[in-house]
Amino acid sequence: MNIGIIGFGYWGTNLVRNFANLKNANLTAVADSRKERESALTKLCPSAKFTLSPDEIIENPEIDAVVIATPVHTHFELALKALQNDKHVLIEKPMVSRTEQAIELINLAEKKNKLLMVDHTFLYTGAVQKMKSLIDSGDIGAVKYFDSTRINLGLFQPDVNVLWDLAPHDISILNYLVRERPHSVNANGVSHTNNGIENIAYINVNYDSGFIAHFSCSWSSPVKIRMMLIGGDKKMIVFNDIEPTEKIKVYDTGYEHKTDEDKKKVLVDYRTGDIFTPKLDPKEALSGMASDFVSAILNGHKPVSDFNSGLEVIKILEASQVSIKDRGKEVLIK
Amino acid sequence: MNIGIIGFGYWGTNLVRNFANLKNANLTAVADSRKERESALTKLCPSAKFTLSPDEIIENPEIDAVVIATPVHTHFELALKALQNDKHVLIEKPMVSRTEQAIELINLAEKKNKLLMVDHTFLYTGAVQKMKSLIDSGDIGAVKYFDSTRINLGLFQPDVNVLWDLAPHDISILNYLVRERPHSVNANGVSHTNNGIENIAYINVNYDSGFIAHFSCSWSSPVKIRMMLIGGDKKMIVFNDIEPTEKIKVYDTGYEHKTDEDKKKVLVDYRTGDIFTPKLDPKEALSGMASDFVSAILNGHKPVSDFNSGLEVIKILEASQVSIKDRGKEVLIK
Amino acid sequence: MNIGIIGFGYWGTNLVRNFANLKNANLTAVADSRKERESALTKLCPSAKFTLSPDEIIENPEIDAVVIATPVHTHFELALKALQNDKHVLIEKPMVSRTEQAIELINLAEKKNKLLMVDHTFLYTGAVQKMKSLIDSGDIGAVKYFDSTRINLGLFQPDVNVLWDLAPHDISILNYLVRERPHSVNANGVSHTNNGIENIAYINVNYDSGFIAHFSCSWSSPVKIRMMLIGGDKKMIVFNDIEPTEKIKVYDTGYEHKTDEDKKKVLVDYRTGDIFTPKLDPKEALSGMASDFVSAILNGHKPVSDFNSGLEVIKILEASQVSIKDRGKEVLIK
Amino acid sequence: MNIGIIGFGYWGTNLVRNFANLKNANLTAVADSRKERESALTKLCPSAKFTLSPDEIIENPEIDAVVIATPVHTHFELALKALQNDKHVLIEKPMVSRTEQAIELINLAEKKNKLLMVDHTFLYTGAVQKMKSLIDSGDIGAVKYFDSTRINLGLFQPDVNVLWDLAPHDISILNYLVRERPHSVNANGVSHTNNGIENIAYINVNYDSGFIAHFSCSWSSPVKIRMMLIGGDKKMIVFNDIEPTEKIKVYDTGYEHKTDEDKKKVLVDYRTGDIFTPKLDPKEALSGMASDFVSAILNGHKPVSDFNSGLEVIKILEASQVSIKDRGKEVLIK
Repeated sequence: MNIGIIGFGYWGTNLVRNFANLKNANLTAVADSRKERESALTKLCPSAKFTLSPDEIIENPEIDAVVIATPVHTHFELALKALQNDKHVLIEKPMVSRTEQAIELINLAEKKNKLLMVDHTFLYTGAVQKMKSLIDSGDIGAVKYFDSTRINLGLFQPDVNVLWDLAPHDISILNYLVRERPHSVNANGVSHTNNGIENIAYINVNYDSGFIAHFSCSWSSPVKIRMMLIGGDKKMIVFNDIEPTEKIKVYDTGYEHKTDEDKKKVLVDYRTGDIFTPKLDPKEALSGMASDFVSAILNGHKPVSDFNSGLEVIKILEASQVSIKDRGKEVLIK
Repeated sequence: MNIGIIGFGYWGTNLVRNFANLKNANLTAVADSRKERESALTKLCPSAKFTLSPDEIIENPEIDAVVIATPVHTHFELALKALQNDKHVLIEKPMVSRTEQAIELINLAEKKNKLLMVDHTFLYTGAVQKMKSLIDSGDIGAVKYFDSTRINLGLFQPDVNVLWDLAPHDISILNYLVRERPHSVNANGVSHTNNGIENIAYINVNYDSGFIAHFSCSWSSPVKIRMMLIGGDKKMIVFNDIEPTEKIKVYDTGYEHKTDEDKKKVLVDYRTGDIFTPKLDPKEALSGMASDFVSAILNGHKPVSDFNSGLEVIKILEASQVSIKDRGKEVLIK
Repeated sequence: MNIGIIGFGYWGTNLVRNFANLKNANLTAVADSRKERESALTKLCPSAKFTLSPDEIIENPEIDAVVIATPVHTHFELALKALQNDKHVLIEKPMVSRTEQAIELINLAEKKNKLLMVDHTFLYTGAVQKMKSLIDSGDIGAVKYFDSTRINLGLFQPDVNVLWDLAPHDISILNYLVRERPHSVNANGVSHTNNGIENIAYINVNYDSGFIAHFSCSWSSPVKIRMMLIGGDKKMIVFNDIEPTEKIKVYDTGYEHKTDEDKKKVLVDYRTGDIFTPKLDPKEALSGMASDFVSAILNGHKPVSDFNSGLEVIKILEASQVSIKDRGKEVLIK
Repeated sequence: MNIGIIGFGYWGTNLVRNFANLKNANLTAVADSRKERESALTKLCPSAKFTLSPDEIIENPEIDAVVIATPVHTHFELALKALQNDKHVLIEKPMVSRTEQAIELINLAEKKNKLLMVDHTFLYTGAVQKMKSLIDSGDIGAVKYFDSTRINLGLFQPDVNVLWDLAPHDISILNYLVRERPHSVNANGVSHTNNGIENIAYINVNYDSGFIAHFSCSWSSPVKIRMMLIGGDKKMIVFNDIEPTEKIKVYDTGYEHKTDEDKKKVLVDYRTGDIFTPKLDPKEALSGMASDFVSAILNGHKPVSDFNSGLEVIKILEASQVSIKDRGKEVLIK
């Protein structure tokens, strides 16, 4: 199986390193519009051919799969063309800029019987895998809330706001861990420059069952925080991604309530117990993602980070964007 | 000056201890409806008289000032009666349940020429005083955002939701530190019991200038977080109230942007520098609040935690409550 | 059973509070040489009689047991007299100043058939009790090392050095958790004043089996550290007493070695796994100690913090003192 | 200037990467006894020649300087030969195994007028450079103590004990920051394997002035600690190398004592104030070390990490080794 990568910037470099090391696939070509990136490729993966033109990859009949790691606004067109040329496609997060685009790609991929996948790398980390198994096993009980904070002093992106930059990680984790699909969002944000691109934003995601998710994103925090709280009615999880070794803590903490007959008075019993800090699989997440892409093509299994994961992230981002611009109004998720 | 306290529960005990130690005032009476609290008062302040009836305090002509530390829904009526009886009045936070009530009390206090004050104890902490002086001195520059998290495993209150329980602390700090008055709020929340009383809630407070404030409140977090980020364009403050000794850190961090002529491209320059952790005044905040109440009566100065502080907190809470029940809709602050 | 307390300073106040609350004993008298302490006693325990003279307690035939909470250099004489007057005796840590004194008291207590106990409060904390049960159950495996750091900005004591002030806590924990008795000590220290009283000191305690214990004590650290590492060959414990809720962490970490035939090459295999943070009993340790004293008298059981615990602490402290003054030389434990 | 590196293992790889990037020197050859390392070199620095034999580097007349990154027991012989062949020499820490060897190399280097330098990389970190300037400026006052903890789950080395593995870092920092030379050491340690190689060890370094230094080293701790406390009589420094961004904190904390006339009573006044966390130079330390080596050769200045730094570390390690094997006895530093 031959693979081509389009886009050889910061993240593209990580992709090249990982795809070059795969056993059951060859990285045969890398495209980037900047001529000066050629020498970097020679160092990193001398067997891959450098090209300035994405089309040389997309139209090359010897290439089976294309990885797209270019700016977001170019994703749709490149992916569309690649699918039209019968390639399997892996797109960097966020998948595309609009829900309609995601659906069009998905339909085309199904028609062409090609794999369409989105790189939500975080789903392949030991931490997220551990949370998934804790939740799926029933240990955590019914999940009641999900609260994520991802803030730091970040580069202001010229074309996308802080939500499109940071939230895809956490939204993809939410959708991976929790089965229920959201009903609506409310979002607020502010731009401290005068281009209207938000550098601080908050999303509430509302669900019919009473489950609630909240995301706090900022490029303007003096401290770096990567924290997720997931509360179940049996146990609760804290995922602190800054911690070098103790990223996941499982609190044997829960609450039960009894409501008396007139449904006015509520008695809540808390329970607190031991804390458990599981050892996590230290494997590099990106390598797991690359393997999953290749083996999903070869074996036909559904990858962890599939197109639905990509689509659902876009739906929430797009609705949040509408809500921010409409002063926090509730926007339904289609 | 003679003082009476109505309500001798958990917080009332702290009030009795602090008012009993004041030099320029006497604590002469304490009222509580639970007869069994009498012996606790004898231990703590034998010179104060215990009574079951608030009226014995409110109508006692020898008492100059009344402190109200009862459940929120009783505040208005007790305070009104006390003012009508020509007492100075100190009310526990939150001041009352509705904006109209706050305004009625304020009008009556002004007519009667009596002091009306709300106990926002946090304003008297060394940490908040330090932040106030840092901001007022111009060190921080223009304040751009305020982000507060106050979450823990908290008692579910039977009559007020998590916002009315926890947010008054942080909203009073916001209003104390930042001069600009808010334009509107959006709030979301969820109740995990079936009495409709929210145990998790989020508030966005919107301002005309682009300044933004956000509050995250929860009774259902397995970990206790008390953190406030205040971002100025010159420096930024992190207030971590869990830290025993290093509560306030001032980051010499800022960002400047240049927008080019077509107002599309923005270049943001970050600056990071030293961090400064000031020593804080270790004095007990509640003792400062009690002193401020008494000396404001005696000397006529405006107390730090005055009725406007109380009113503004109620306005934001009330609007948030409306927004939560109206699915996050923007609600204007009157 | 009637109890008298001699010494009503900082720690004596805690003792009075706890002994006054016991159900199966009465605190009937408290002695302190400072007349002005009388009013504090009236507030805290009005039923106890105040006296300036220890002898009024020691010689009072109606008092069954005496608690000694005076400066260290007075412990021996007061305890001796109390035992001679047929009292049960509880002495604050450190028990006495010299090993001979401890032995003389122990012999007299046995002859008189009276309880002699030392207040090593830490043994009654939830944290130490949890470590004890973890070690006794075999979970930790063979204990290989014990490393304790207890440093902060501390009051320079006028009569005892930092070892006698701080190390008794940790040495009593060591002796409680580990069965093997030490062979010798090496200690170093330094006095930064010119009275020769060390404000920084380190002790190594050597054992025949290869187990090693180390204590680091300082009154001159800008940060407060209370940390203990206990390494077993199956698991390891970290006890961080500064942590408000997660004081004890059990690391599923171990190492095994294989030595090849010529005993030169060693292969060590590490194993790291989950971390477990047990919930601890939140009961106040001092109340447990006071109960243990009274019930040991009433029921005849051996208390947790018995005279051997006191004696062994004195042996290590005394030997360490000799080693410090003899430039770190090894000093045998008698 | 042409440079050759002998030893291309873990650390040698870092050296190759940094020397290959220097502007005023060429890395022309790398020797390693493992043939399979050749391809790694081709990737990292294709312009350098690979050889199996150190002599091809040492005896090559076109090479001006040799870097030795082989196991410790080979350092002396390789360095001696290199100096005899008129090369400048950089040796990895620890410099050699015995003080006499260090002195012989130093004497030969001076006779040959060649640079002899030891790679104590830590001296080039932003953290150590900041501490150096804080101490040299007089801000800290007279330095009273130095306390270092470097513990983690570390590879048991087959030929050197934990002191020779870990302590060189901290001893070189001590010697760099503090001018006074030590008088003697006491050290204790224990081997938990049966080859007699210590995996836990403690060193006390004694000074005539009353200054004291202490090192705690372990390969057997479940947690990684890298902490240094440096106490001055004006201020104190805490260096926590685990912290990603706030490695150095300067505490405005000090103590003064007054001794009364009979020199028995001492009154100590504490002072605590603000904490200052300076921004550190983020430059990679190893690159600074490599530059210093080359520019010291070219310009003749004394490098930061010079042969005296290397010699003094060996003196303390060697004396500590004697003390450990002699049960903690004081051993004079020659």
